[in-house]
Amino acid sequence: MEKLIITVAVTGAEVTKEKQPNLPVTPDEIAEEVYKCYLAGASIAHIHARLADGTPTQSYEIYKEIKEKIEKKCNIIFQPSTGGATWHTFEERMQPLLTNPEMATLSAGTCNFGNDVFMNPEEYIEKFAIEMKKRNIKPEIEVFERGMIENALKLVKKGILELPLHFDFVMGVPGAIPGDVSDLVYLVSKIPENCTWSVAGIGKYELPLAVHAIAMGGHVRVGFEDNIYYKKGELASSNAQLVERIVRIAKELGREIATPDEARKILNIKR
Amino acid sequence: MEKLIITVAVTGAEVTKEKQPNLPVTPDEIAEEVYKCYLAGASIAHIHARLADGTPTQSYEIYKEIKEKIEKKCNIIFQPSTGGATWHTFEERMQPLLTNPEMATLSAGTCNFGNDVFMNPEEYIEKFAIEMKKRNIKPEIEVFERGMIENALKLVKKGILELPLHFDFVMGVPGAIPGDVSDLVYLVSKIPENCTWSVAGIGKYELPLAVHAIAMGGHVRVGFEDNIYYKKGELASSNAQLVERIVRIAKELGREIATPDEARKILNIKR
Amino acid sequence: MEKLIITVAVTGAEVTKEKQPNLPVTPDEIAEEVYKCYLAGASIAHIHARLADGTPTQSYEIYKEIKEKIEKKCNIIFQPSTGGATWHTFEERMQPLLTNPEMATLSAGTCNFGNDVFMNPEEYIEKFAIEMKKRNIKPEIEVFERGMIENALKLVKKGILELPLHFDFVMGVPGAIPGDVSDLVYLVSKIPENCTWSVAGIGKYELPLAVHAIAMGGHVRVGFEDNIYYKKGELASSNAQLVERIVRIAKELGREIATPDEARKILNIKR
Amino acid sequence: MEKLIITVAVTGAEVTKEKQPNLPVTPDEIAEEVYKCYLAGASIAHIHARLADGTPTQSYEIYKEIKEKIEKKCNIIFQPSTGGATWHTFEERMQPLLTNPEMATLSAGTCNFGNDVFMNPEEYIEKFAIEMKKRNIKPEIEVFERGMIENALKLVKKGILELPLHFDFVMGVPGAIPGDVSDLVYLVSKIPENCTWSVAGIGKYELPLAVHAIAMGGHVRVGFEDNIYYKKGELASSNAQLVERIVRIAKELGREIATPDEARKILNIKR
Ligand SMILES: [Mg+2]
Ligand SMILES: [Mg+2]
Ligand SMILES: [Zn+2]
Ligand SMILES: [Zn+2]
Ligand SMILES: [Zn+2]
Ligand SMILES: [Zn+2]
Repeated sequence: MEKLIITVAVTGAEVTKEKQPNLPVTPDEIAEEVYKCYLAGASIAHIHARLADGTPTQSYEIYKEIKEKIEKKCNIIFQPSTGGATWHTFEERMQPLLTNPEMATLSAGTCNFGNDVFMNPEEYIEKFAIEMKKRNIKPEIEVFERGMIENALKLVKKGILELPLHFDFVMGVPGAIPGDVSDLVYLVSKIPENCTWSVAGIGKYELPLAVHAIAMGGHVRVGFEDNIYYKKGELASSNAQLVERIVRIAKELGREIATPDEARKILNIKR
Repeated sequence: MEKLIITVAVTGAEVTKEKQPNLPVTPDEIAEEVYKCYLAGASIAHIHARLADGTPTQSYEIYKEIKEKIEKKCNIIFQPSTGGATWHTFEERMQPLLTNPEMATLSAGTCNFGNDVFMNPEEYIEKFAIEMKKRNIKPEIEVFERGMIENALKLVKKGILELPLHFDFVMGVPGAIPGDVSDLVYLVSKIPENCTWSVAGIGKYELPLAVHAIAMGGHVRVGFEDNIYYKKGELASSNAQLVERIVRIAKELGREIATPDEARKILNIKR
Repeated sequence: MEKLIITVAVTGAEVTKEKQPNLPVTPDEIAEEVYKCYLAGASIAHIHARLADGTPTQSYEIYKEIKEKIEKKCNIIFQPSTGGATWHTFEERMQPLLTNPEMATLSAGTCNFGNDVFMNPEEYIEKFAIEMKKRNIKPEIEVFERGMIENALKLVKKGILELPLHFDFVMGVPGAIPGDVSDLVYLVSKIPENCTWSVAGIGKYELPLAVHAIAMGGHVRVGFEDNIYYKKGELASSNAQLVERIVRIAKELGREIATPDEARKILNIKR
Repeated sequence: MEKLIITVAVTGAEVTKEKQPNLPVTPDEIAEEVYKCYLAGASIAHIHARLADGTPTQSYEIYKEIKEKIEKKCNIIFQPSTGGATWHTFEERMQPLLTNPEMATLSAGTCNFGNDVFMNPEEYIEKFAIEMKKRNIKPEIEVFERGMIENALKLVKKGILELPLHFDFVMGVPGAIPGDVSDLVYLVSKIPENCTWSVAGIGKYELPLAVHAIAMGGHVRVGFEDNIYYKKGELASSNAQLVERIVRIAKELGREIATPDEARKILNIKR
């Protein structure tokens, strides 16, 4: 079985310091938190930028600052979000790609997202994919529902995306696919054979889905963007604490942890 | 096995007379087409209104006219669309409910719909459901993706919708869940035990999914809204022709066809 | 979609004339029944031999007589059973292979079979496979449970069987896998990609599983061995009557029927 | 989620001291090993008896001796095997029931078991079930293939077994169902809603299936009967070592471990 790639989503666009006091918000905080997660075993940092007051932003400058601060500390893969917050415009969402990251997320369809709608019409998906192709950025295909796999494969047929793809199944968002193991097995059964996948379980789904993924040969995303608790009723002390648990469980299962360079190899990232 | 409920979706919001010359568009055409489908075995008429030039409309008056014209001909269940076209506003989409139909569609989430987005944020779903409850209209829960089942069940928990629900799995819309039998089996496995369901396969999926549903004990929707062909490369001569084929196949399988009153009983419609 | 191969299992080892008066038993009766099924659209004849009094036999001479009588009438593919009755010895079960048929069944594991046990220990499976390979007989892998697929694939790894295999899912035998569509979808998901498959639903499962298979691109087995009724409470008048219904349903679905030579091509049978 | 019941299968009928030097064989060794597993967190001891030279036996006296020796040490649930070795007769296999254990295994069908056949014709299953009912012994339904669930449910219909049943999915035996997570999800989807289940993964499947079960709310069996390795190429030092790992993983997942009395309650065992 391949080594395990752990992605850490340290901040997200929705969580606040009120709800999770240890949330990293400024570029310095984010870079420091990412570094601790890297030391714990993470090989990809999924990043959302924030203004000083905590407001989500897709500002090129702030993403750039975060990227540079992380790169000074470690060689973890920098993966900015092109999803942003549900109210960001397409143009805003494009900006992180200007930092020429090795990787970026590409949300492959539209769905309800709590009270909001996460807008990813076909046109957006295609434009994000074209920009990533142009800049040689490895897309992580964010899948919130079954049909989004097909949306991505359609772009493969059009020659805009290339196999093998790397999928991230985001499961448990209110309004989209929930996080039962049967849902995960179903999604996994629908991707082409040589593709890789990870799972980002939201809230209570984070830990069980991570564990299924470890045992199935998939990869794992954890972090405050998806889940702020260590256990029921107990906030996590840091993103690194969540990473450390995944590392311990993987070790119990005999699954080794990928370094960033090993993750690059598994994901076919060549720069 | 329960008798088979056949829904016919004669017009839809997207098909044009250019693509399907036999498309019924005016209230008279729609009522006449519905009547022929009723004679062929349909027990529910899923209706979209159009202006004289073919433009989709959610006009109360036109829905009312269609309803009355159908009711003069037969006792088929009148089921107007609250989906409308993807560009209709929420207020427009509400209008058909003012006709106090026995049944209406309730789309339970947002997804891509070809180039467009079919918008059904949580707020819309809830408001449609409340209005239907108030007017004692039986909702048909339109499911384009897995998560939409959960969205409906959430409203059950809130007391706005009531079990048993009737689901319609719309499968094969570009941008949403495709129509493999494994997708259908998956969706069916996720609804509560006493609920009923039908399937509306889009395009090439219409016929095979209908056949799976007949054999599984589900119900079936056919019609020009979903599919304009009788077979590959050959346009259907009428909606009734599509209904007739379903009736013949059901008979081969020993499944009897529900009359409108039998459908009312199966669906728990009491007026 | 490939043309549909219809196998007819006209006699079996368990049904009696008492239960189904139209059961063909003698070589003449069997050949005549097979011929009628061929005319109706069957391209494979799955054969069990009987003594004059109806007792199942694996006698080489009787299989030979049946084979020759069928060959005089038509070019349907002759597929004798190596399963026989549950009480036949391994040596008896081997005998039909001496007739050098183009095809033969190869039951890939042991399971309960009503009150009896259908014995197919690993050693039998392997010996049958070796003999078929030696004689250039195309095996039809009979699968009564999930693990039997693996048993066959193990022989592929050993070089005794060759891909692509043709599987027959026998579903609904009391004691083995039942015949829900979810069971069929599960089994189909477990065979290698280029393999072909058919389904033999037992009793009440025959018709719905056949219909699912037609729509899924699989192939179909019907006949008195599996089911003696035309509908609930009404015995079939002949095996051909069961074949004819499958042909009619396939036509409704736009699936063409394979001739024996087309079936040979689909199954990769070269003599 | 219910507390986790860990069953330890310390000896089995197939493993030898040559292959696993730490295998407990004598009643004293077995009782001592069970006690260590109890201390580690096991609440059920699945027991096979052996003669002094290691030969599997279904001797009443030896089972009785083991039972008494265990009972002196702890209140773990004693669960003898009625499966024995594949060559034991039905009468031999019955003997452990004479010790009036609280629980015993009931293998619900026949399948290949490596080179052998594990014989459980309908008649055996029924007789074992009747004897267990008479003696108020809680059966653990051993499921090696899908159809075995149906075999057990048939006995429920006959009034010989009672819901809720406790199933044990034995997965990965060569010749029967393998141990992919999709196989497990499939089996779990087929048992009645209030039933409990555990999984016994054979060899390499033990650990991943155990982990899936922990996350899914199922229960777990480990031990030398199923798997003698701690990790690839490294023999386990004891059965307790395997139990300890399950306990550690369960704790990481926030799942508490059931004591024997808590297991009795979950399984509805009343003596
Ligand atoms: Mg919005
Ligand atoms: Mg026997
Ligand atoms: Zn994100
Ligand atoms: Zn519509
Ligand atoms: Zn046969
Ligand atoms: Zn055992």
